[in-house]
Amino acid sequence: MNHMKTIDDYLKELSSSSPTPGGGNVSAFCGALASSLALMVCNLTIGKKKYAEVENTMQELKLKFETYQKKFIELSEKDNEAFNSVMEAYKLPKDTDEQKETRSKKIEEATFNSAEIPSEVIKTCYEMMPLIKDISEKGNVNSISDAGVAALLISLAAEGAYLNVLINCNALTNQTLANELRKQVGILLQEVTSNARLINQTIISKLSSKAN
Amino acid sequence: MNHMKTIDDYLKELSSSSPTPGGGNVSAFCGALASSLALMVCNLTIGKKKYAEVENTMQELKLKFETYQKKFIELSEKDNEAFNSVMEAYKLPKDTDEQKETRSKKIEEATFNSAEIPSEVIKTCYEMMPLIKDISEKGNVNSISDAGVAALLISLAAEGAYLNVLINCNALTNQTLANELRKQVGILLQEVTSNARLINQTIISKLSSKAN
Repeated sequence: MNHMKTIDDYLKELSSSSPTPGGGNVSAFCGALASSLALMVCNLTIGKKKYAEVENTMQELKLKFETYQKKFIELSEKDNEAFNSVMEAYKLPKDTDEQKETRSKKIEEATFNSAEIPSEVIKTCYEMMPLIKDISEKGNVNSISDAGVAALLISLAAEGAYLNVLINCNALTNQTLANELRKQVGILLQEVTSNARLINQTIISKLSSKAN
Repeated sequence: MNHMKTIDDYLKELSSSSPTPGGGNVSAFCGALASSLALMVCNLTIGKKKYAEVENTMQELKLKFETYQKKFIELSEKDNEAFNSVMEAYKLPKDTDEQKETRSKKIEEATFNSAEIPSEVIKTCYEMMPLIKDISEKGNVNSISDAGVAALLISLAAEGAYLNVLINCNALTNQTLANELRKQVGILLQEVTSNARLINQTIISKLSSKAN
């Protein structure tokens, strides 16, 4: 994903039969959207008298979310590159035994890399989720729904990335390595999704106080 | 959201303390991302010999997803407009009793509209989810993770929109109307999220066949 592209062009490229950008790219991009909403909550809290007590915390969180925003954009770009490398490897010649061996090796390497990028997305989501919890509890209460959408986006980024870990792990010859990766990210994913559910439920309760 | 904007500018605007675009806009935008991924799956299925049996179905689904893509983009723009109308209403003069009354009425109307736009997002997600199920079952199996990310995105669009229904319903004076809306969309939301979970679980099972 080139972030200087217009949204219209991005949606057109996503919709097309060109394999990139695809679901892996969008998952990482949702991490960037989450970071942006989290930054918005910080910006709507910083400098407000009512929130003077959390001013320093919000300033620190803001710097962290800026870093995560950049990281997710990078990961969404890397996801495209990784997928394109797999496509390139499949196009290598396979006339001689030596060529066949080289081609298989390159496909395996590129596929493993394509599983590693979404794994990195999941790890980043796992790191960032507690900070989303912080802004949902300490940030400007008028933006609590924005903090909630950020939590949902991080959960989606991890869940979407997980599907991309699985589809690439499936294509690996080395299933021992594939199993390790699946298990490793599976544990992190559970943490991310259960934390997102908790944050979301807490926000729904707060916002439903007038309902009957 | 102006879709001729660059992604970079969109992320900057989201991050800023300007209240729009915010979580409601992003939720609707995720519906557009889901439609785009769904279109990609259709485009990767159409014209393939292996999928000749579902050619007509995919052609029909493609037209529908194109319509939903446009609708979600429209809804994301309307979400900004609705929020800006609330801000405008709050700025109305409140010096005389008549002015106070007009202002309160305008705030109530604009707030109700701000609850209706995300409700429309939830209804659209509810309509679209069965079509995502279709492509996850009948579409090109190489794109099954993309269909899965589309299902997750539609679920997020509905869940994020729900938080925006709640925060606006909370601000309404007419809590009878607010309760009706909350209940109406709450039922649709349950359907959307449980269907997304089922689709996602089915895809995870299919993609975990090699795991142990």
